[in-house]
Amino acid sequence: MNQKAKDLVFHMSAEEFRRHGKEMVDWIADYYQKIESFPVMSRVKPGEIRASLPRHAPQHGEKFEAMLQDVEKLILPGITHWQSPNFFAFFPSNSSFPSILGDMLSSGFGVQGMLWATSPACTELETLVSDWLVEMLDLPQKFLSTSTGSGVIQDTASNSTLCALLAARERVTQYASNERGCDGRLVAYTSAQAHSSIEKAVGIAGIGRKNLRLIEVNEEFAMKPEALAAEIQRDRAAGRVPFFVCATVGTTSSNGMDPVRAIGEICEENKVWLHVDAAMCGTAALCPEFRWIHDGMKFADSYCFNPHKWMFTNFDCGCLFVADRNELIRTMSVLPEYLRNAATESGAVIDYRDWQVQLGRRFRSLKLWFVIRHYGVEGLQHHVRRHVELAQKFTSLVRADKDFELAAPAPLNLVCLRHRGGDEINQRILDCVNQSGKMLLTHTRLNGKLVLRMSIGQTNTELHHVERAWKCIQEAAANA
Amino acid sequence: MNQKAKDLVFHMSAEEFRRHGKEMVDWIADYYQKIESFPVMSRVKPGEIRASLPRHAPQHGEKFEAMLQDVEKLILPGITHWQSPNFFAFFPSNSSFPSILGDMLSSGFGVQGMLWATSPACTELETLVSDWLVEMLDLPQKFLSTSTGSGVIQDTASNSTLCALLAARERVTQYASNERGCDGRLVAYTSAQAHSSIEKAVGIAGIGRKNLRLIEVNEEFAMKPEALAAEIQRDRAAGRVPFFVCATVGTTSSNGMDPVRAIGEICEENKVWLHVDAAMCGTAALCPEFRWIHDGMKFADSYCFNPHKWMFTNFDCGCLFVADRNELIRTMSVLPEYLRNAATESGAVIDYRDWQVQLGRRFRSLKLWFVIRHYGVEGLQHHVRRHVELAQKFTSLVRADKDFELAAPAPLNLVCLRHRGGDEINQRILDCVNQSGKMLLTHTRLNGKLVLRMSIGQTNTELHHVERAWKCIQEAAANA
Repeated sequence: MNQKAKDLVFHMSAEEFRRHGKEMVDWIADYYQKIESFPVMSRVKPGEIRASLPRHAPQHGEKFEAMLQDVEKLILPGITHWQSPNFFAFFPSNSSFPSILGDMLSSGFGVQGMLWATSPACTELETLVSDWLVEMLDLPQKFLSTSTGSGVIQDTASNSTLCALLAARERVTQYASNERGCDGRLVAYTSAQAHSSIEKAVGIAGIGRKNLRLIEVNEEFAMKPEALAAEIQRDRAAGRVPFFVCATVGTTSSNGMDPVRAIGEICEENKVWLHVDAAMCGTAALCPEFRWIHDGMKFADSYCFNPHKWMFTNFDCGCLFVADRNELIRTMSVLPEYLRNAATESGAVIDYRDWQVQLGRRFRSLKLWFVIRHYGVEGLQHHVRRHVELAQKFTSLVRADKDFELAAPAPLNLVCLRHRGGDEINQRILDCVNQSGKMLLTHTRLNGKLVLRMSIGQTNTELHHVERAWKCIQEAAANA
Repeated sequence: MNQKAKDLVFHMSAEEFRRHGKEMVDWIADYYQKIESFPVMSRVKPGEIRASLPRHAPQHGEKFEAMLQDVEKLILPGITHWQSPNFFAFFPSNSSFPSILGDMLSSGFGVQGMLWATSPACTELETLVSDWLVEMLDLPQKFLSTSTGSGVIQDTASNSTLCALLAARERVTQYASNERGCDGRLVAYTSAQAHSSIEKAVGIAGIGRKNLRLIEVNEEFAMKPEALAAEIQRDRAAGRVPFFVCATVGTTSSNGMDPVRAIGEICEENKVWLHVDAAMCGTAALCPEFRWIHDGMKFADSYCFNPHKWMFTNFDCGCLFVADRNELIRTMSVLPEYLRNAATESGAVIDYRDWQVQLGRRFRSLKLWFVIRHYGVEGLQHHVRRHVELAQKFTSLVRADKDFELAAPAPLNLVCLRHRGGDEINQRILDCVNQSGKMLLTHTRLNGKLVLRMSIGQTNTELHHVERAWKCIQEAAANA
């Protein structure tokens, strides 16, 4: 065997990739076409998938056919089908074929965009698409890269919030956290209904979780601005340093909408960083009629929403916007010799490694670019409107049934409902519909009561899915 | 138009996806087959890519053909080709066709594996493959999920190190950082040659960057254990709290190998968390003859290496192993009502959201599983050995040229070299070879001197690429 042949012997050739890649494309298309035939929630028991697989890595390579067979036989039963139109759990993590195509291309290029120089297109397309989104959501101009801010694609809202929190910490310690640790006096604020990632970020940043104040909400599960103002005053009086407020536009439990304007005025007065977490609901602002959710956004220092939730872009793709990019860069930047390069030194480029926790990064903007171009603004608007319409239809079905009540306002695409019979019956309904395999719901607690969450946002969810889900819930209630 | 047709009008159909998916597969295969025809480093100027693209998002959807054309015409010139066999810059971020296929499947499933229940296969395959890797690299048994520890797939070593640092912080504050902020007394240690991500993590965690001690290295750029011991003693005497040491197995600048055993003994004696960062070089331990790099690993509390660097698995895929999983979980866990579920309550399953900064996560183990199964252990060993062999061959070429010298030992696949003529000539060589488009090198500084880094690890790099690279460097030197 000559050297060249020896080198290549274990690699898959480009010709084999063409064949297997096309088989994989067909497998994925088949999967979507038959996705409704699977129980939405996987029925496997803990340990079952693992037990079905070899305990040790193979010594010798295997054929692709064997792998694809195992996916079909062994992996598929362990999948909870997030892309099923009958998936109404959590928040959606919707996807679309254009997005999958963009993600394929990202995997194919295999570039690592830590610096502008390591693939200029990776950085510049991301900045461009972020600017597009500022216009598409009608966000303040300061979030444009052509202004003082810019957008950056993070993996998740957890990391967007962490970055915002760190920049806020840096601002209030006068850029001194490089020099010393946190001193235990800093205080952050969010609503009692905010996402767990805020508490996690406060813990990670060394602020101390007890220094996160969970502000009271009103009957619509929105933060009470007067309660926030009072807490800030109390903390100031006690010699503490309020530095960060996270307002939520669409809380996870119930889509509670914090009043950004009133909160923003308090933040401005107190010189506190305002971060707005619109992870799921931000997408609604594609449609002018829903832009009221962002009223007061001019007060925000940072803002995030996730196209990987409701904008047909597969996980992971979270957009963070900052009003002053230098504050973020100053917080995150470390420049070792081995990353120095002429483009960075020139100051004419963005190096996104300084905008995130990680150093390395995928070419994530490709999938977002594909999605926006495929659908166009009007296509995205259409499907977002359609989801809201379906949720409102579902709301009216719930309202018309005397056994059920709405547990919270349903301003957009999440409906919180509850059987009037109490927690136990609601738990039985939940278990029953989920075990049926026909749909998947999750729950929360509001005012101490168990509540069913009907979250509508999967790409292919249509009226008949929502109607069937309601029927399924009613039947479960009848038998509960 | 009936309702069903109205619903579907903007989506790409499964049949269209079959067609475009196959076009994309061919496009990717074509790209790899002609990758050597492109200049390795993109030649565009700052702003050029962006200026070539529309300033505003399209109102109406576009055809897939238009997008693919733009990729070819507008994006491709802005790519620095990490998957070119002539890419010798930074560390590799190598990929392979089996990995791309696994990533396609992950995009296709579109599941979000934050909880076991949200797709049991996503969690169980990850745990299984992590256990495989413990055996494949001959790591200590404590890192097995069947023991006290386990592996988890993170996006990057930056996040692996951050998670380890946070767990260490939690341990030394007796799990009290939930209750209060860091107090400025904690001290972390790493070598003066360690990766920038350590400093970044220390900053993020609120430890304060000045509380990171950069320990002196020896002439082989490895941490001096006696200097570490002395620093720890000094800090203890000053009332500070040493809590975290990061040893590097293969530093970024020069592949310096910190002596893990000697460092580990010091950590054990001082009850300090030992994290081992083997982001690039860990893969070498697939081969028994290179396992000396891990000597003393039994002292490690945590360990990370990135299959996305040298193990043919496309970015992002970083493996973190912890000796005591409860320490990590205790650090990261936040459990809101809306994530509660029967499987979690049973305690019988892993919920990987508690093992990372983010809440959401992709099905990353698929690509790793595909890679390991396609190559088998012997295939992976073969290609890792081959890369080391090529680097050793390159080393002998450098040694034979009286104008050049090795600037550091080259134990594995990174060769640091230097023209004897001084920094200026080395800079001119660097600029010249990179501008030629034939190859890409990056630099570092060792002992204050500019050094060229020849990093060999791209999947398809063969002997003739390395020989041509050396010729290219020699020619540049002759004209410098």
